[in-house]
Amino acid sequence: MDALQTINAHRTIRNYKSDPISDDILNSILDSATRASTTGNMQVYSIIVTTDETLKQELLPLHFGQQMVVKAPVILTFCADFNRFNKWCKQNKANPGYDNFLSFFTAAIDALLAAQNACLAAESYGLGICYLGTTTYMAEKIARVLDCPEAVVPVTTVVMGWPEETPPLTERLPLRAVLHHNKYKDFNQEEIDSIYFTRDNSAMTKALLNENQLETLAQIFVEKRYTKKDNIHFSKSYLEFIKKQGFFNQ
Amino acid sequence: MDALQTINAHRTIRNYKSDPISDDILNSILDSATRASTTGNMQVYSIIVTTDETLKQELLPLHFGQQMVVKAPVILTFCADFNRFNKWCKQNKANPGYDNFLSFFTAAIDALLAAQNACLAAESYGLGICYLGTTTYMAEKIARVLDCPEAVVPVTTVVMGWPEETPPLTERLPLRAVLHHNKYKDFNQEEIDSIYFTRDNSAMTKALLNENQLETLAQIFVEKRYTKKDNIHFSKSYLEFIKKQGFFNQ
Repeated sequence: MDALQTINAHRTIRNYKSDPISDDILNSILDSATRASTTGNMQVYSIIVTTDETLKQELLPLHFGQQMVVKAPVILTFCADFNRFNKWCKQNKANPGYDNFLSFFTAAIDALLAAQNACLAAESYGLGICYLGTTTYMAEKIARVLDCPEAVVPVTTVVMGWPEETPPLTERLPLRAVLHHNKYKDFNQEEIDSIYFTRDNSAMTKALLNENQLETLAQIFVEKRYTKKDNIHFSKSYLEFIKKQGFFNQ
Repeated sequence: MDALQTINAHRTIRNYKSDPISDDILNSILDSATRASTTGNMQVYSIIVTTDETLKQELLPLHFGQQMVVKAPVILTFCADFNRFNKWCKQNKANPGYDNFLSFFTAAIDALLAAQNACLAAESYGLGICYLGTTTYMAEKIARVLDCPEAVVPVTTVVMGWPEETPPLTERLPLRAVLHHNKYKDFNQEEIDSIYFTRDNSAMTKALLNENQLETLAQIFVEKRYTKKDNIHFSKSYLEFIKKQGFFNQ
């Protein structure tokens, strides 16, 4: 398959075979991860590859008990990481100035571009992947399990393994929802209705509304999936942890 | 080329032909961008595709005068974007709770995964790309040029076009520099020396040190390329803009 086909065939996999990923394939995937663009070629990220069963059991509750964390053979935790770079600076007569939010964000970008490369490389081998949003919710505890030192912050996690399922492609919004020509053109009420029409009226949405006894799909997002209360809680804990790791000294 | 080959052949392109990218190819690339994983299928990002010459001239100084911004046919600004989602919530009897840092970061992840998909899709067509770090430095002014409303924050920019050069692959650190097995294993002085040995001692480094009259490559990063002063300045301006766009209300 060419790159376009691989990209366009992506579906999130949540059920995995227990078969391991060979070292050759895993190294090839990780090598491809490092080919992603990185600010100034600093490579200010790290990839923690967890295959140990005990550690996966420790990670499981931090990823809210999602069973794929223990069932899939490989868990990749992508971290924003200035630790290695700072050490290199300090032992080379240079005083690093990367204890600030911009540096954290730069490192997070590096980590995320590498993660997406890893996912596509894995999918080109027929492997399946799933990103875990729980990483930003539970970053401090995950970092503790994985021994992350100062200046290292988990940004996302990718579960990887041989798929036990082939779900249909996820329906995306029409391209005009995310695309703006030359400048951002804001939406009026009619345009929003039109963009979300298919999603608002799908059979899956109707089943969800029935199950949750709610009136609109938006209410399911706001009241069930991504609530203000949780968002405020996890904003606070993530920011505090980013600070604790030394990225808000300035 | 299969996906692995495309990923592994990536090099940043800084010199472009002025030839346009056809609508068919551009739409295919943007469509592939939307296949990337997105938190809860919310697609909380947007892509502003700038081809207008006047607008590119306005963006040029905000990207520090890098000529490829006007020479390449297409400039893609990837934004963290809760504007569309919030509008959809509000007109569907749901009160959005996405005015916080976690939501900004979630949206930034969405934007960056989509950006990397777009880059690889472009490269599979033989196009070249370059990420611009200047986006986080000048986000507010870029947002003003591109009419970004509240809850929309530029995260990265990709220059895209037909390459006028084929530079060699960029040397990366050995895989062991970014890879940790099971847990993070911190580095001692010897390991840091070993990881950076090739880079510290390359002919390119020697030429740079001579040109800059400095003793170590790390000093070039710290004193010339990514200085503490700039990092502090841009940390402040980016955080202030993220706040202004309504992501620190809680």
